[in-house]
Amino acid sequence: METSKTAPMPTIRRLPAYLRLLIEYNRAGLEWISTTAIAAELDLKPIQVRKDMSFTGIIGKPRKGFEVKESISAIESFLGWQRESKAVLAGCGALGSALLGYRGFTHQGLKIQAAFDQSREVIGKTIHGIPVLDIADLKKYVIENIVTVGIITVPEQFGQQVADIMVDSGITGLWNFSPVKLKVPSNITVQNEDLSSGLAVLSVRLGENQNNEL
Amino acid sequence: METSKTAPMPTIRRLPAYLRLLIEYNRAGLEWISTTAIAAELDLKPIQVRKDMSFTGIIGKPRKGFEVKESISAIESFLGWQRESKAVLAGCGALGSALLGYRGFTHQGLKIQAAFDQSREVIGKTIHGIPVLDIADLKKYVIENIVTVGIITVPEQFGQQVADIMVDSGITGLWNFSPVKLKVPSNITVQNEDLSSGLAVLSVRLGENQNNEL
Repeated sequence: METSKTAPMPTIRRLPAYLRLLIEYNRAGLEWISTTAIAAELDLKPIQVRKDMSFTGIIGKPRKGFEVKESISAIESFLGWQRESKAVLAGCGALGSALLGYRGFTHQGLKIQAAFDQSREVIGKTIHGIPVLDIADLKKYVIENIVTVGIITVPEQFGQQVADIMVDSGITGLWNFSPVKLKVPSNITVQNEDLSSGLAVLSVRLGENQNNEL
Repeated sequence: METSKTAPMPTIRRLPAYLRLLIEYNRAGLEWISTTAIAAELDLKPIQVRKDMSFTGIIGKPRKGFEVKESISAIESFLGWQRESKAVLAGCGALGSALLGYRGFTHQGLKIQAAFDQSREVIGKTIHGIPVLDIADLKKYVIENIVTVGIITVPEQFGQQVADIMVDSGITGLWNFSPVKLKVPSNITVQNEDLSSGLAVLSVRLGENQNNEL
């Protein structure tokens, strides 16, 4: 319904940083934040800030900038972080365990309800307070608990298999940390987190900077 | 010197996926890979594949596509993954420990030599074979070992402080996993990995898909 939903990917990726800054301002008791303050803090051009903010439906006031509380609500609402999505995580290795311990998700509308693994060594335990269940029970659990998000932190060779089970169970959003390119139906949303991509950007830019110095 | 170095960010981010696919083909004993096979596998348009590959200096042959071994070398060389960068990691919490256990980095030119923390509980131990040292000794270590990359996995409130120490020690590339926007001199390369950004994209797209179904 809202055409504003078609915000470009870089805008969406930046909004959590806006949100963090606004929450800091709010904690400090400040009611307004100027466009130039946001721009300086996040290393952006002021025009970009105004554009990004406009996608959330917020328009700044001349000389005052953005009203802090109103902007927080607008961004949270735009990101859908006011409603809670239930999630399960598959793969309780080092990365999976790290994600289970990350407290930020609850402020971001994501509630990891259960974790799944195939190893007898972890099944039945809890990690950071979240129960680890047998991966064979994933489908049953997802259906019974109306889970919408599946987090995939299994080794590469199991990524597709786990994604298939999740999709088959009715999960519509996959957050994929395994370095496999998942094949899923077109109605499924996949967000890939690939450490190699970040490392590639770092390597290339590091190389560029070194060349510039020569 | 090479103008091809100015590849767009999305191209750089995609190259590790090309590399993984090519390595698979190589393992399977295949000498050529067609543009359409890459495109289908990575969910890209063939023209995009040809463009991405051209930045690495590789041009496909009609009807045959890309020579697998040659393409692997070209991408690894473009990403600088053939030379080794020495890295240190600061912050041995859940995420830091997970990264220390990630074996992929060695194939990607990154060698994490040591980890640093301020907690007496972990200093002196090893995590996944990597020694954990006192963060007070970080500067000395970096200078003595000519470390170029610093990985930051400390809590948000310590992010800037750790970055300052790293930059002051001569590190020129920061891989920042803390959700703080680092302020660094312009000759320093920063690659931010922000889980919130990925989650934001997932949430918004999940919301869009659900709206489309209504």
